[in-house]
Amino acid sequence: MKWKTGITRVERDLIQVRGYDISDLIRKYSFGGACFLLFTGRVPTNEQGRMMDALLVSNIDHSLLSPSTAATRIAASGGTPLQAAVASGLLAVGSHHGGSVEETAHLFYEAVGRARREDMDIKLIAIRLLKDSKNNKRRIPGFGHSLHQHDPRVDGVLNLADELKISGDYVVFAREIERNSELHFGKHLQMNPDGAIAAVAMEMGFDWRMVRGFFIISRSAGLVAHAFEEYTRERPHRSFDLSEIEYDGPKNLKS
Amino acid sequence: MKWKTGITRVERDLIQVRGYDISDLIRKYSFGGACFLLFTGRVPTNEQGRMMDALLVSNIDHSLLSPSTAATRIAASGGTPLQAAVASGLLAVGSHHGGSVEETAHLFYEAVGRARREDMDIKLIAIRLLKDSKNNKRRIPGFGHSLHQHDPRVDGVLNLADELKISGDYVVFAREIERNSELHFGKHLQMNPDGAIAAVAMEMGFDWRMVRGFFIISRSAGLVAHAFEEYTRERPHRSFDLSEIEYDGPKNLKS
Amino acid sequence: MKWKTGITRVERDLIQVRGYDISDLIRKYSFGGACFLLFTGRVPTNEQGRMMDALLVSNIDHSLLSPSTAATRIAASGGTPLQAAVASGLLAVGSHHGGSVEETAHLFYEAVGRARREDMDIKLIAIRLLKDSKNNKRRIPGFGHSLHQHDPRVDGVLNLADELKISGDYVVFAREIERNSELHFGKHLQMNPDGAIAAVAMEMGFDWRMVRGFFIISRSAGLVAHAFEEYTRERPHRSFDLSEIEYDGPKNLKS
Amino acid sequence: MKWKTGITRVERDLIQVRGYDISDLIRKYSFGGACFLLFTGRVPTNEQGRMMDALLVSNIDHSLLSPSTAATRIAASGGTPLQAAVASGLLAVGSHHGGSVEETAHLFYEAVGRARREDMDIKLIAIRLLKDSKNNKRRIPGFGHSLHQHDPRVDGVLNLADELKISGDYVVFAREIERNSELHFGKHLQMNPDGAIAAVAMEMGFDWRMVRGFFIISRSAGLVAHAFEEYTRERPHRSFDLSEIEYDGPKNLKS
Repeated sequence: MKWKTGITRVERDLIQVRGYDISDLIRKYSFGGACFLLFTGRVPTNEQGRMMDALLVSNIDHSLLSPSTAATRIAASGGTPLQAAVASGLLAVGSHHGGSVEETAHLFYEAVGRARREDMDIKLIAIRLLKDSKNNKRRIPGFGHSLHQHDPRVDGVLNLADELKISGDYVVFAREIERNSELHFGKHLQMNPDGAIAAVAMEMGFDWRMVRGFFIISRSAGLVAHAFEEYTRERPHRSFDLSEIEYDGPKNLKS
Repeated sequence: MKWKTGITRVERDLIQVRGYDISDLIRKYSFGGACFLLFTGRVPTNEQGRMMDALLVSNIDHSLLSPSTAATRIAASGGTPLQAAVASGLLAVGSHHGGSVEETAHLFYEAVGRARREDMDIKLIAIRLLKDSKNNKRRIPGFGHSLHQHDPRVDGVLNLADELKISGDYVVFAREIERNSELHFGKHLQMNPDGAIAAVAMEMGFDWRMVRGFFIISRSAGLVAHAFEEYTRERPHRSFDLSEIEYDGPKNLKS
Repeated sequence: MKWKTGITRVERDLIQVRGYDISDLIRKYSFGGACFLLFTGRVPTNEQGRMMDALLVSNIDHSLLSPSTAATRIAASGGTPLQAAVASGLLAVGSHHGGSVEETAHLFYEAVGRARREDMDIKLIAIRLLKDSKNNKRRIPGFGHSLHQHDPRVDGVLNLADELKISGDYVVFAREIERNSELHFGKHLQMNPDGAIAAVAMEMGFDWRMVRGFFIISRSAGLVAHAFEEYTRERPHRSFDLSEIEYDGPKNLKS
Repeated sequence: MKWKTGITRVERDLIQVRGYDISDLIRKYSFGGACFLLFTGRVPTNEQGRMMDALLVSNIDHSLLSPSTAATRIAASGGTPLQAAVASGLLAVGSHHGGSVEETAHLFYEAVGRARREDMDIKLIAIRLLKDSKNNKRRIPGFGHSLHQHDPRVDGVLNLADELKISGDYVVFAREIERNSELHFGKHLQMNPDGAIAAVAMEMGFDWRMVRGFFIISRSAGLVAHAFEEYTRERPHRSFDLSEIEYDGPKNLKS
């Protein structure tokens, strides 16, 4: 069986990513820019390269509040090597952590696509989503955060997107949801980083199914830093202690 | 390239593990017995089958005190699927958690092997190890536990090994270390499950490098149970909260 | 925050799984039996213990034809430790590998549950499923295998279930699908191990969402054996070679 | 128990990495620059930021020749989600794949440190290493590649390091090993990317134990791209086929 791939061509003394020599990429592009090329096959403009870096930087770490980081710290304390500690953390990514950006990107993709096909106003589409969600008691992904009210990553990402002239329909749509939420959804919805990143990723032409990957790449850096801190600062075999665990099952049975 | 293997032969409508039809294994052996055959290539006696089951049962779960279980619970709370939650936990296995049984097995293998080659008394070899370790301030793996004093798994495993007449030089060696520790090491060393399992695994002829695998297989069952409990009983995205995290790095710097 | 659990109670010198002393479990139950207790909270009968062992034995290994085993061999060749090589393989479990048993269990659970609620004949429910699936061009999980026609694991599992008097409505349902497939689905559907295991697991009262876990536990043993074989028999860093990879993307572009 | 960390401070509406506001990092630094800050706690100069990007870009992908990529493709074909497919591949990182850069960094750190302490000429230290390694039949990590003779990543990384005036003793040391290998080691040693990256990472002041992390972060991008290609282009459940597997164990035994 042949394993076909259109990503990287490797022959003796030749490595080309999407057709471009690796030595050119090393010289010319930031890691964000190279990721843009790797994922889209298109050479990034300066603006696209900078924006991609910003998306990756925004999720680089969120301390042990993040399940992925907690898992990595605990795994590292078991004495597992770096790749395993990082993988342990990445595996905490899922529908409730890091995966929501995918759901958000999908929502934005469908909504803006529909607005374009039906030549409708973006604001009206946003309001319709708010009303429908209210009626069906559905939450809207990309808004709200358990800790932050004004998450600094949101303005960080969106202001740069504005400045680099990357903001377009998707960013407008996300902002219209926020702006009209009180009136049409019945409570204020504050955009979170998933919302901001999803909107900008859609502006840049990414497939919505790939956006979860940004979180994975980005967070792997934070996980490396946390595993290293665990190895070098802490005693081994850390987990929960007896006082943090409450057993509420049956006791003292006889078989 | 051919991938050679001597483990399982698969052809259309034929599956043989180490040469034995899978349907025979399904009918005749417990999972422990089948693992014995899979790992050694030898058909287990009744005693070997029962003992192997007991080794696997002994590590089946240790609640969230175990780093592996804590990592699995946290990963599951991120909304990752079962295989990923289990893998996240297994990755916490390492030199400080689940890996110590390998170190213990290696130590026992070397010590008893030397006793046999040099035709020395097992008890004397144990005492020599205690003295050397004391002089070199080396800890002896397989003894001591952060929580348990008399870990019920140790007697569970060793009593069965005695009864099944599997106990031999390795079990004697482990017990002699315990018995002579106060006198020759300067403090009492209580055998822990790693010590008991390593001794019995060596009695059964396992390669010491494979013994870490018993913990992995065994604990995977506990991790499945914990992931399932997390999915079905708890709210998502659980990790540490702000009050459990202490930031002690620099603050409010300007770049 | 407290981490609640009803699985295992651990205190100093005390370990109880679902309320039963670990030393009792070590002495009395096979690994399959202990898994039954761990997952259901019920003490297994002899028949349930034997059946659970058989379910675990049936998936213990399927050589490098299995994506999980292939991933583990390749990871092991990179020089990663045992827990990481096993985890790498487990992560290949998914909707197309090892996950299908869950889909099958869900289907059987719904279908037999409906037959019972509506007091309908199992055979009629099976025929209705075949017809519906044919009309909607839906495949039926638990039937058909890319390699085996008469997979020896199916008879191995089902004959034992018959003998132990565990077979009931679910096994009847699975067999009726097979028996009536040619007539009502338009082609013969041969039961595969997913079908047999799902049916028997449902007979034993398991939650259908947990059945994927059987594959994970079971296969972890095969993955340990394969990682060990890779470490001890092969040269490092094995992957695909140039002749097995076909690059079909763009070439020699200039940025 | 408190979990201490000096990496990222998180409070309501505040995220500071190593003391710097995340919104500043998003605006000012490439992902490589942010990684430099995250790992060292120091604000990167323009040169350090660019160099760090280049180190990350250099290992972004090497097609299915890489065990990590092969494992990710196979895992993805099993139908596992993106985080699990990427983790599966990262777990192939080990002493023979991706881990060698750590060994190389350690070697360079020790050698150059010794040269500095003993005020010796770098070239002489390199020659001494070559002679010692020849005499003890030890291979020298960071040199030689199974496929490439002149790996384009080596010049890509080193030319940029020269240009940015980052090259110093470590790069000199690595080049002296290459230059003097034929004469003093008995065969030409061509520097590979591990050698180039390790030398430059040491120039930038990284802890040698962290350098393996660069590979992990970098390659996670390639693994995302490959998993995505597998999901979107290929049929499921790909592994080795019967013709690629050679069973050489016992056959047709009776238990």
